[in-house]
Amino acid sequence: MFRNSLPHYEILSQEAMATLDGGWRRLVSEIGVEFLSDRALELFRAAGQKVEENNVRFDPEFLLEQVAKAPAEFDVTARNPDHTVHIGGDAMAFGGVYGPPFVRQGEVRRDATMADFENFARLAQSFPALDSAGGVICEPNDAPLDSRHLDMTYALQTLTDKIYMGNVVSGVNAADTIRMTEILFGGREAIERAPATISLINCNSPLRWDERMLEAQFEYSAANQPVVLTPFLLMGAMSPVSIPATLAQQIAEALTGIALSQLIRPGAPVIFGSFLSNIDMQSGSPCFGTPESAVGLLCTGQIARRFGLPVRSGGGLTSSQVPDAQAGYEALMTMLPTFLAGINWVMHSAGWLDGGLVASYEKFVIDMQILEMLRAEFQPLEITEESLAFDAHTEVGHGGHFLGAAHTLERFRECFYRPFLSSSDNYDRWLRGGGLDAAQRASTVVERKLAEYRRPELDAGIEAELADYVTRRRRELGD
Amino acid sequence: MFRNSLPHYEILSQEAMATLDGGWRRLVSEIGVEFLSDRALELFRAAGQKVEENNVRFDPEFLLEQVAKAPAEFDVTARNPDHTVHIGGDAMAFGGVYGPPFVRQGEVRRDATMADFENFARLAQSFPALDSAGGVICEPNDAPLDSRHLDMTYALQTLTDKIYMGNVVSGVNAADTIRMTEILFGGREAIERAPATISLINCNSPLRWDERMLEAQFEYSAANQPVVLTPFLLMGAMSPVSIPATLAQQIAEALTGIALSQLIRPGAPVIFGSFLSNIDMQSGSPCFGTPESAVGLLCTGQIARRFGLPVRSGGGLTSSQVPDAQAGYEALMTMLPTFLAGINWVMHSAGWLDGGLVASYEKFVIDMQILEMLRAEFQPLEITEESLAFDAHTEVGHGGHFLGAAHTLERFRECFYRPFLSSSDNYDRWLRGGGLDAAQRASTVVERKLAEYRRPELDAGIEAELADYVTRRRRELGD
Repeated sequence: MFRNSLPHYEILSQEAMATLDGGWRRLVSEIGVEFLSDRALELFRAAGQKVEENNVRFDPEFLLEQVAKAPAEFDVTARNPDHTVHIGGDAMAFGGVYGPPFVRQGEVRRDATMADFENFARLAQSFPALDSAGGVICEPNDAPLDSRHLDMTYALQTLTDKIYMGNVVSGVNAADTIRMTEILFGGREAIERAPATISLINCNSPLRWDERMLEAQFEYSAANQPVVLTPFLLMGAMSPVSIPATLAQQIAEALTGIALSQLIRPGAPVIFGSFLSNIDMQSGSPCFGTPESAVGLLCTGQIARRFGLPVRSGGGLTSSQVPDAQAGYEALMTMLPTFLAGINWVMHSAGWLDGGLVASYEKFVIDMQILEMLRAEFQPLEITEESLAFDAHTEVGHGGHFLGAAHTLERFRECFYRPFLSSSDNYDRWLRGGGLDAAQRASTVVERKLAEYRRPELDAGIEAELADYVTRRRRELGD
Repeated sequence: MFRNSLPHYEILSQEAMATLDGGWRRLVSEIGVEFLSDRALELFRAAGQKVEENNVRFDPEFLLEQVAKAPAEFDVTARNPDHTVHIGGDAMAFGGVYGPPFVRQGEVRRDATMADFENFARLAQSFPALDSAGGVICEPNDAPLDSRHLDMTYALQTLTDKIYMGNVVSGVNAADTIRMTEILFGGREAIERAPATISLINCNSPLRWDERMLEAQFEYSAANQPVVLTPFLLMGAMSPVSIPATLAQQIAEALTGIALSQLIRPGAPVIFGSFLSNIDMQSGSPCFGTPESAVGLLCTGQIARRFGLPVRSGGGLTSSQVPDAQAGYEALMTMLPTFLAGINWVMHSAGWLDGGLVASYEKFVIDMQILEMLRAEFQPLEITEESLAFDAHTEVGHGGHFLGAAHTLERFRECFYRPFLSSSDNYDRWLRGGGLDAAQRASTVVERKLAEYRRPELDAGIEAELADYVTRRRRELGD
């Protein structure tokens, strides 16, 4: 499990923080937040908040009281204990891309299929830097619509032994995910004690939580499974064209969603979610890896810590249509601030392309390269007398080189991170190796990883029970 | 002139800093630093340092006294006053790639020529984000060897009106650069008062300053022209395989070079230089954009500030052979820490490819895109009551969108940085536009910028005098 050992990079002054604080308080109390769920409205009404139709006007102090009930840190259990994830503190966990309807492999862009979903799950299992395949890694368009959540959950449970995200399309889907998690982890009581799936609840920003997401939230929070309450903010569309306004809105939306989880089940694990970028003001297209999104991300980490909450963001985001230079720099424009901000749960860490519409095989590998580099960068830097290697200087002297120094020979295997994708070959050697660019080399890594993949072992009885559940429920759902 | 408005990201504790402090003191006093220059040795001897053959063992306190004479901030004058650069404080100035013998354009990699040099100078003039074309933007292999420094300086002086770097191949070349700078800026007294060229003095690390570089340093410092004293550190080759050891060595080398400038001319402007990365320990190839180089860079900014010195580093570094995803993420792996570290003079900000062996036209444009984004990111973030845009929320309400809000309409032109190279087009639109990746789009930007380029005006008398100087000196140099 990766721990971020470098300091947080915080850019908000106390004064700025106070202004933002005034901002979200005014939003929740004067404008309010809509909850398209009678159960949610009833809980808020009973707790003394002002409910008019679907809108709830909050006492900010009430929200803070609820938020204070949420745990600052918690675990999400994986069926392989080595892959159990800690959420919060200086821990950072990484999941794959979530939601694309399309895939790209080589020069081909096409509808995603269940076979793609399974391949991405295998890739996620293959890269130690990734803590989770995620959830809807891509939309399996060839699987029956009403029951594909069963197929996806089954694939995540059987092809990987890492944590996985729960389906949130409806309360029914959430209940199925929970039931399958119970089967895998030994029953309801076991998963309530040690949560084993994590789910993304998106806000229909601005200031509205929709019915289907809330139904899923009710299921997961009641079962003590963590939910990521995520304002979905593309500045200019779902929030004002202002970073501070967007940050205040993000707090208002996240805290109200979190408060609901605490009313459903006090102490239920939650994550302060963030998905914050901007649109191109001429075309209306969403843009990723932008300067504004990076600034928002840095602020978000600082803000969530102030509320004592773990924080989610993502990942290797890019608008680029192909895994080119733009995809490389935009992914890092998001991923490096993700580390600087101390984000705890990082979605879309692998495979995101084309504004999130495409799960890209090559980009998946490129993102793994970026992630490995950053994990190496944010290691502890131990500066001790011994680390100064004075003896090496005595040995080498002036104008020499350290290649053969005893200090070097003792350490050369481990001293630097060695990339698996990036090439530092000299030009002739690179040409002899085929003259492949990073995306082309990534293709060969995909092939190799899939060929080398070994399915993690799973108790045959549990696997049969999961398969039976999928079969039975698919029939019940009419697919 | 760009000012970095975000906080510095500093990762060294006081304790770590004290350990590094002990490290460089021990290096300079016990092992010493070689200066292959009788003039330098004589100055150090006269100042009471222990000189044996070419080696100087220093009293660390003496070095600190010399360093304290150097200005913390200074200007470098451009012939267009709007392009004069401030070095130090929160100012950041950016120069193009420096030194490649090859160029790459499209799919062709070949020897660089004077025509390439001139093209890159034109590109540098065309991008406002770049403060300087640099110096040896590429090596003009078709120009006569002994006089090509004249051609390069002439091109930098006439094709751009920005600051330029001086030639350092020898004392003679430095003297020519200074003389041409005198012609352009109105004489020796004028440039001594207001320095107008900046030069890179590399250390032959470990712990040796070579004769030709020192000769150039003598010329420039005597003329009060700033020099960048730069340890050249590829860990594993020129320094131990340890970041702390390399940082201590970097301090030792930089401070001794800086002390020499102060003995040549007390108060002469200097910059704490850094060129710090690592080699691949299997192949011996230099690697760029590595985690270790990023950590070194963050520490370097903090260290230089402790000595009250402006600091140099670079830039858009990459090992990649082509302007692909690797080039994108590696460039940003260096460039973003450059901003976080508060580097003042950023070399290799545009065009670096293939470990610095290649000046790439497309990478130049990609780097300009990255630089513009980071300049936008490190703007002041003003969080005021007005910035919270509460009225926009009142107008839009729940679940609406902000596209047509009054707040948006007032600000949509300026609210977000708009990229010139990155594409956020939807896939169909992108396909209709040719389906070009970032490198291919960069090619078209190169063509357009070169077609649109207008030579900045220059007094005809001065230009003739420069041309005469070049002609005369070329004859004298036997080319």
